[in-house]
Amino acid sequence: MGYQELTIEGRNAVIEAYRSGKTIDKLFILDGCQDGPIMTIKREAKKQDTLVKYVTKERLDQLSETGKHQGVIAYAAAYEYAEVEDILNAAKEKGEAPFIFLLDNIEDPHNLGAIIRTANLAGAHGVIIPKNRSVGLTATVARTSAGAINYTPVAKVTNMAKTIEDLKKEGLWFVCADMGGTPMYQLDLQGPIGLVIGNEGEGVGRLVKEKCDMIASIPMKGDIDSLNASVAAGVLAYEIVRQRWG
Amino acid sequence: MGYQELTIEGRNAVIEAYRSGKTIDKLFILDGCQDGPIMTIKREAKKQDTLVKYVTKERLDQLSETGKHQGVIAYAAAYEYAEVEDILNAAKEKGEAPFIFLLDNIEDPHNLGAIIRTANLAGAHGVIIPKNRSVGLTATVARTSAGAINYTPVAKVTNMAKTIEDLKKEGLWFVCADMGGTPMYQLDLQGPIGLVIGNEGEGVGRLVKEKCDMIASIPMKGDIDSLNASVAAGVLAYEIVRQRWG
Repeated sequence: MGYQELTIEGRNAVIEAYRSGKTIDKLFILDGCQDGPIMTIKREAKKQDTLVKYVTKERLDQLSETGKHQGVIAYAAAYEYAEVEDILNAAKEKGEAPFIFLLDNIEDPHNLGAIIRTANLAGAHGVIIPKNRSVGLTATVARTSAGAINYTPVAKVTNMAKTIEDLKKEGLWFVCADMGGTPMYQLDLQGPIGLVIGNEGEGVGRLVKEKCDMIASIPMKGDIDSLNASVAAGVLAYEIVRQRWG
Repeated sequence: MGYQELTIEGRNAVIEAYRSGKTIDKLFILDGCQDGPIMTIKREAKKQDTLVKYVTKERLDQLSETGKHQGVIAYAAAYEYAEVEDILNAAKEKGEAPFIFLLDNIEDPHNLGAIIRTANLAGAHGVIIPKNRSVGLTATVARTSAGAINYTPVAKVTNMAKTIEDLKKEGLWFVCADMGGTPMYQLDLQGPIGLVIGNEGEGVGRLVKEKCDMIASIPMKGDIDSLNASVAAGVLAYEIVRQRWG
């Protein structure tokens, strides 16, 4: 895994990025643009399942760092993504029951970075994020992870609920944090486990929540609603650490 | 506690702010400036123990939002500070053993906001921050605290080590997080307690650490050095919650 440029602008540069195998997280294309190179880019985007947004020229000008976007701007991952398989193999190699973080649409890069940092230190084998909406492995995420992104594999999946189904076949149990759940201290969080963390504002989505085996509640002794997403992830992850190794 | 302007610029505005009893966190004064109004401001600053920085005209121009700083810019607290006494009284009123967060020079406003949020939800009675170096109750802190700043009193003290001494006389025990300490699960964290959280880069300062009764270590199962400061505060705070109420 190595550093890469974050923003790629211009038709040839974007086509070149696809051909060299770079992971493009998001593509902004001038709305209505239909010429040859743009159609090539759209085909590549479809092949690789890139998230495409059609935007106005004003929006592209705003996003552009070089002023020469030629109707297309790509956001590339600052780091390479792993596969879910790699995460399971990492657990096998260590001879440990898998412990995986699943982030259901974390939007703030500082939160994503802090959570990857926590995943590393809590001894998790990897982090899974969804392809759409969620922030990707940008330079800010890399920085906020304090280097953890070099060690902890991050996989990107199209359908989080389906990924959970697949991982259940591998023997994992899934716990998510939400209000109205069982106090986390009373749950059995040992063994192969997936820890699901919801979106900053909306929490865990309904479809994903329905797939979870356990809903854990973090005790709330105060006046406001919820912890910061990365703090909640840390608190729940360390309850798992306590039960595993404490 | 209510919202206030964050930046106050110009001689009269700053003098007025002092006279009306506003808490000024930091004062930037044009280096070498010695006239009447500036001398008045310096006297007020000394009386109230404000942190003063002497800077160049270029730096002031850079900091200025109005372009009319007249050689002086003040950063006022976005929220009113409480006294340590208020925090102890809050515990008494609830009939609970005091539980206080002490932040030894947290510099990032997002971390300070997230920690105040955690303090609120972990049932702590207040937060103590040092007067120098630490970030104050700015608008960013207020926003990141998700409203917790309206409920959880924050006090500012000149000498953190001395404050710890004083609080020991009130029966509090102090725990800080640091490497090489006792695993947190093995410590007795019940009863009246002060939780000391160190600076993002440097950890807990030597003088403050020497005053702590217990050094807790958070288990580190990964490859990197340390958790994000607000995550570490959350993990340790919730070990206290578990032992108090779990």
